[in-house]
Amino acid sequence: MQRVRVVQYGLGPIGCDTAKALLEKEGVDLVGAVDIAPDKVGKDLGEVLGLGRKLGVRVTGDAPALFRKVRADVVSHTTGSFLKDVYEQLESAAKAGVCVVSSTEELIYPQLRNPGLAVKLDGIARRHGSTILGTGVNPGFVMDTLALVLTGVSRNVRSIRMTRRVDASTRRMPLQRKVGAGMKPAEFRKLVKQGKIGHVGLMESMFLVATALGWRLTATKEKVEPVLAARKRVTRYFTVAAGEVAGIKHTASGYCGRRRVIEMDLSIFIGAPKPMDSIEIEGDPKLHMVMPGGVSGDVATVASLVNAIPRVLESEPGLMTMLDLTVPRAFRAT
Amino acid sequence: MQRVRVVQYGLGPIGCDTAKALLEKEGVDLVGAVDIAPDKVGKDLGEVLGLGRKLGVRVTGDAPALFRKVRADVVSHTTGSFLKDVYEQLESAAKAGVCVVSSTEELIYPQLRNPGLAVKLDGIARRHGSTILGTGVNPGFVMDTLALVLTGVSRNVRSIRMTRRVDASTRRMPLQRKVGAGMKPAEFRKLVKQGKIGHVGLMESMFLVATALGWRLTATKEKVEPVLAARKRVTRYFTVAAGEVAGIKHTASGYCGRRRVIEMDLSIFIGAPKPMDSIEIEGDPKLHMVMPGGVSGDVATVASLVNAIPRVLESEPGLMTMLDLTVPRAFRAT
Repeated sequence: MQRVRVVQYGLGPIGCDTAKALLEKEGVDLVGAVDIAPDKVGKDLGEVLGLGRKLGVRVTGDAPALFRKVRADVVSHTTGSFLKDVYEQLESAAKAGVCVVSSTEELIYPQLRNPGLAVKLDGIARRHGSTILGTGVNPGFVMDTLALVLTGVSRNVRSIRMTRRVDASTRRMPLQRKVGAGMKPAEFRKLVKQGKIGHVGLMESMFLVATALGWRLTATKEKVEPVLAARKRVTRYFTVAAGEVAGIKHTASGYCGRRRVIEMDLSIFIGAPKPMDSIEIEGDPKLHMVMPGGVSGDVATVASLVNAIPRVLESEPGLMTMLDLTVPRAFRAT
Repeated sequence: MQRVRVVQYGLGPIGCDTAKALLEKEGVDLVGAVDIAPDKVGKDLGEVLGLGRKLGVRVTGDAPALFRKVRADVVSHTTGSFLKDVYEQLESAAKAGVCVVSSTEELIYPQLRNPGLAVKLDGIARRHGSTILGTGVNPGFVMDTLALVLTGVSRNVRSIRMTRRVDASTRRMPLQRKVGAGMKPAEFRKLVKQGKIGHVGLMESMFLVATALGWRLTATKEKVEPVLAARKRVTRYFTVAAGEVAGIKHTASGYCGRRRVIEMDLSIFIGAPKPMDSIEIEGDPKLHMVMPGGVSGDVATVASLVNAIPRVLESEPGLMTMLDLTVPRAFRAT
C-alpha cells in the first residue's frame, strides 16, 4: 500500500491533536505544517506539538509556497468554521491538486450559506484533480451522516429526531468559549441577537439530511438559548458562577409545509448530565438509536479527519459531502 | 428525476413484500416478476401479491427471456442465501446489463466462500455495465456496515463487539424454520454437525468488517447452539413445546494472532426478551451504540433492498459490497 503524504494546515488544539494522530498513523508521512501564529511560524513542528523532539518539519505561514515545494497528497485542514474565512486556504490546496479533509463546519453543506463559493471551489478542485471534504463529529456525523445511514434500513421515512447532549467541561478551551461558558445571561442573549453565538453547522446538518432524503424544506425554525449553571462550576479553562452561562441549548426544526420532518436538539454545557447521542427515525420500521456517553468530541473529531483520508483519495475530484463518498470507516485498525 | 424500471426476481415472503414496496415507491415502475413456483408462473403479479387487482405484469419462470423482452434498470433479487444456488440468476441479469440488489446472504462478502464465482461474476458485470450488490439487515447492516460506520469516528480501533437479539416470533415463516423452531434438541445438534443450521452470513459480516479495517484474521471460532423454550410458545407458524428448540444462538470470534478483534453474538429465538442491537467499539474514543427493539427484520430487509437501488444505479459496474458504494440512506423519504 502506498504511503500517504499529508500537510497539517492549522495548529490550534484540534490541529495539533490531528498532527499527533497522523504521526502515529502507519503509512502516513507528515510532510508539512501551516499556521499563521507568530509563535509557531518557523519552529519545528515537534516543538510546537510539545513532543520534545524535532520532526524536521518547519511550520510555515505560506501555504502556496509549501505546496509548490513539497509534494503532498492530502491537507488536513483545521483553521476555521466559516467557508468565507478559509476559502483562500482551500483554494490554494485545490490549485495545487492536493486533496483536503477539513473540519470547517460550513463545508458539511457549503451550498447553504455560500453557494457561489461552493460552485467556484468545486470547479477549481475538479480542474486540478483535488477532492475536498468537510467532515467531523457534529456537524459531520452524529446529527447527519449517522442518521442518514440509519434511514438506509427504513421505508416511508416521515421524520427524524436527533438529540445530542455534550458535557463541555471535557472539551477544548475554544469550544467552551464558543458555547458561552462563564458569560452573564444578558451578554449571551445580546450575542444571540447579533448572530454571534450558536453551534456552527447545525443548519448545515439539517440541510444535508433534508437534501439526501429529498425533503425540500419550506421553513426552518432555530433557537439558541443559554443554559444557566445551577451551581458553581470550575473547568480547566473557565469558572462559571451559579446563575452564569454554562453553555448553550441550540434547537432547530425543518418543515415540509406544515409537517415537521427534522427536529434537532443540541445541548453543550459545562456539567451536562448523562452526555449522549440519540436518533429516532419515524418510518417503517421505526428505529431508535442511543449512544450512551455520546460520541465524545475532540478525540472523535480528530479521528473523523484522519479516517476520511483514504476515502477522499479514492474519490473523484470536486467539492464533496459525506454522502458523495463511500461508507465512513476507520483508516486501518490497529 | 428519471423513473427506475425494476424487475422483482423471487416471490417468497420477502420478495412479495419488496414488490409491494416497489409498487408504492414514487418514481419506480415494476416492469417484471420472476419466480419458478408452478402456482405463481403465468399469473398476474397483482394476484400473486393478493392485491385484488391486476398489475399487467405476468410472473415468468424464464428470466433471460424477460431481460431480452423488457428494458429494466435493476433487479430486486430475493431467491436464496447461497451464491452457488443463485449464481446463474445473477449472471443472467449481469449479461443483460441490468443492475442487481440482492438479499443473498453470501453476497455480503462473496470472496469468503466463492472467490472463483465472485471474480467471474465481477468480470461479467463490468463488461456488461451491471452493478451487483448484496445487502440486507443481517448480514448487510447491523453486524457489519453500521459497525464500520461507527469506526469512522474512532482511532486505534482495537476490537469490535456486536450483539443482536431477535424475537423470531415476529418474523416470517422461513426464518422461524431456519432457526430450528419446534425441533427436538438432538435433531438440532445433528443438523449443526452437518453444517445445515446456523445464521447464513454471520461469517461474511465478520470478514467484511475485518477486510475493511485491514485486519487479516489468522483464526476464527464459531459456535451454533440451540436455545430451548422454557415454556410452550405458539407462533403463527409453529408450536414449540417446553424443552424444544425455540431458536439459535450463533456466536463467532475473529482473531489476529492471539488478539480477539471481532466478537459476534447473535440470538434469534421465539420469545426472545428485549430484542436489541448493540455495537461496542474499543478504540479512541470508545463507542457504544444500542438500538432498543433492534432493527426489526423483514420490514427492514425490504427497506434495505429498495433503498439500495439509487446507489447501485450511480455506481461503477462490477460486483460490489456495501463498502464500495456511497453512504446508505433512504431512497427518498415521504
